[in-house]
Amino acid sequence: MELLVTYDVSTTTPEGAQRLRRVAKLCEGYGLRVQKSVFEVVCTDADLVRLNDALHRIIDDTEDSIRIYRMNRGSFKAVEVLGAARRLPHDGALVL
Amino acid sequence: MELLVTYDVSTTTPEGAQRLRRVAKLCEGYGLRVQKSVFEVVCTDADLVRLNDALHRIIDDTEDSIRIYRMNRGSFKAVEVLGAARRLPHDGALVL
Repeated sequence: MELLVTYDVSTTTPEGAQRLRRVAKLCEGYGLRVQKSVFEVVCTDADLVRLNDALHRIIDDTEDSIRIYRMNRGSFKAVEVLGAARRLPHDGALVL
Repeated sequence: MELLVTYDVSTTTPEGAQRLRRVAKLCEGYGLRVQKSVFEVVCTDADLVRLNDALHRIIDDTEDSIRIYRMNRGSFKAVEVLGAARRLPHDGALVL
């Protein structure tokens, strides 16, 4: 399946900045970073459960916000990009 | 149609900060802000053409990045939310 993971992690505190790094690092193990806080992920249902669980353990539920959108197959290839944005090639599931 | 608009606008300069405000303001006329740089938009094909055109005129093509994903109908309702994220109700096309 194709997922779009977007997040806002509060960085007003050192702890928040660390959570941000940990969320980014985690997502890098699942997919491609296409913008600062946006990842395109191609993965299985089981991977999604693991990702969801791992994110839950990192974030502060009151301050941080994560959205995981299920995408149509092929939506990453069809994304409209403006400015410096580029479509990135996904070579199947990237989960490490 | 349902679109997800995500953007990174460079704010290292005052001009960049102004572009960021203008992109956000423009998107607010088309949809709901769900995270700092993520908007859920319900609109028509014609609206998308106008939005795309207006965004092009605001951004710096070398520094700023905008991605517009076409979503499945109902994907906003089905989004997985973690932490402080909330699903937002869309009452049909919001274009002002």
